[in-house]
Amino acid sequence: MDSCGNIAIIGSGSWATAIAKLVVQHTHHIGWYMRHDERIEAFVRLGHNPDYLTTAHFNVKEITFSSNLNDIVAQYDTLIFVTPSPYLKQHLQKLTVPLRDKLIVTAIKGIVPDENMIVSEYFHQVWQVPYDNITCIGGPSHAEEVALERLSYLTISCTDVEKAQAVAEILANDFIKTKCSTDIIGIEYAAVLKNVYAIAAGICNGLKYGDNFQAVFLSNAIQEMKRFLEAVNATPRCIDDSAYLGDLLVTAYSKFSRNRTFGKMIGRGYSVKSAQIEMEMIAEGYYGTKCMHEINKTLQMDMPILETVYRILYKRAEVKTEIQLLTKNFR
Amino acid sequence: MDSCGNIAIIGSGSWATAIAKLVVQHTHHIGWYMRHDERIEAFVRLGHNPDYLTTAHFNVKEITFSSNLNDIVAQYDTLIFVTPSPYLKQHLQKLTVPLRDKLIVTAIKGIVPDENMIVSEYFHQVWQVPYDNITCIGGPSHAEEVALERLSYLTISCTDVEKAQAVAEILANDFIKTKCSTDIIGIEYAAVLKNVYAIAAGICNGLKYGDNFQAVFLSNAIQEMKRFLEAVNATPRCIDDSAYLGDLLVTAYSKFSRNRTFGKMIGRGYSVKSAQIEMEMIAEGYYGTKCMHEINKTLQMDMPILETVYRILYKRAEVKTEIQLLTKNFR
Repeated sequence: MDSCGNIAIIGSGSWATAIAKLVVQHTHHIGWYMRHDERIEAFVRLGHNPDYLTTAHFNVKEITFSSNLNDIVAQYDTLIFVTPSPYLKQHLQKLTVPLRDKLIVTAIKGIVPDENMIVSEYFHQVWQVPYDNITCIGGPSHAEEVALERLSYLTISCTDVEKAQAVAEILANDFIKTKCSTDIIGIEYAAVLKNVYAIAAGICNGLKYGDNFQAVFLSNAIQEMKRFLEAVNATPRCIDDSAYLGDLLVTAYSKFSRNRTFGKMIGRGYSVKSAQIEMEMIAEGYYGTKCMHEINKTLQMDMPILETVYRILYKRAEVKTEIQLLTKNFR
Repeated sequence: MDSCGNIAIIGSGSWATAIAKLVVQHTHHIGWYMRHDERIEAFVRLGHNPDYLTTAHFNVKEITFSSNLNDIVAQYDTLIFVTPSPYLKQHLQKLTVPLRDKLIVTAIKGIVPDENMIVSEYFHQVWQVPYDNITCIGGPSHAEEVALERLSYLTISCTDVEKAQAVAEILANDFIKTKCSTDIIGIEYAAVLKNVYAIAAGICNGLKYGDNFQAVFLSNAIQEMKRFLEAVNATPRCIDDSAYLGDLLVTAYSKFSRNRTFGKMIGRGYSVKSAQIEMEMIAEGYYGTKCMHEINKTLQMDMPILETVYRILYKRAEVKTEIQLLTKNFR
């Protein structure tokens, strides 16, 4: 047992599955909370997640599955949360075991709806976890590529660098390079904003803007992100590091990003509702947009892309006109 | 006649054609130097460039074509150079008319081989053109998209801002937004380096590195570019502006970039020679790599991507090993 103690995964999607695979290769034992017993049963029977990353095979003897979150939290020292952010609160509703002495790892790239909090803030304020016990996994990381063992770089952040290092050690291997950072707030907000920007990139693509424009869009988006992060957490950071710029690029350029796909449908003329019905997975940026808009009411930073996406998604603003207005301020 | 006077285009490729189209829409008359009389004849007969951007139609009555560079230079006040950089010297060999009183506009994204000079430096040092009379067109700009009237953003740079503004006015329209900058040196070097990085991105793609890695690669590339530009021309600049980051992104992510395609062939195991034979267009980054390597011998900046590409293209270094070594230093 190393400094992370026993480790459990909370969540059952593709990123949860990819992270579980990384961890269990190191520790040879993990706990794994999944909400539905049927998924657990199918996983044990098949030796892989029945619904996501089905080619990633596991030795199920190394996994203690449970659909009881209290059991998992009680028995494990380190809890890696990898649920879609809109479901996090719902998962934790049933929790009666305290979290404050656990090492919390969040691999959730989103914001907690209604609370308008990034995940670390939520665990700190609502679940009394000290900031030094909350780490975050950031960086450009399509789960599918991690599962395929394609070289990827993760940034592990925590106000306590030693904790970040401990988590980084568990995740690192020949194809996963890790680095550590203390800018957990910046990296978490970057991960939220990049989803908003991926929606915007998708909208522009749906409206038939081209590659020249996409490059200009991203130049403007990273500068908008930089302004916001400086306002919300003034600390020395290089916005072009892979946890900020890299994460934005991989999402905004990816044809597989659900945020981009959602945006593209909006750009092509779908209503928000019909785009949501047609998509089977949640576009986290939809919620992220509203939360970031609310948060920025206090900060009052100049966030033209965020506000444009907000007006399109929540105020039924005319898509083409809104994007045309936005482009006038681009440089 | 505005402050640019009479304008001529030097070059006949796709970017030259796209720029000619922008200019003639404003001025209703341009001179146009093309090396080969057959191309001029075909252009006049067809009403479009016979070889590039064939869907961009021109009113040929608005164009004075010539295959005599001296005639064109003598008769025009502003000369827009849009040749591939490796051919620039060759074109100018026959020139006996002085250039020093002309307004030079370079839309060449490359470096002058052998001289190891960016184009503005070459016009200044070899052709005695004052820096205040040299402007550069930068920014993410696939010619094909400009010809299709897809919204694009160009940055016009000159040490004399008024000259930059005069050129910007000639190019701007509903779908071309222009901005001005005095960082002509930085923008020119950025355009050279982005070709080198596009080759590297192609090599990695050819070696089957994925999208997560590509995003990390570009995060590292833009930081390498920033280091170099600060060393070569210390001036306040935002490296995330579209003339730097945007130009890098559009090239490195483009499947149509000849530099990226060239790199991809190298990554897949083609020798440099066979990749060059198979490609019909010149990959400017091939020459750019050597020139930048030579220039950096003096500056001695930490340029691991540049040096890796140099060793692969010019020192027959083993591709897979070189890229693996490079990735170890990435963050």
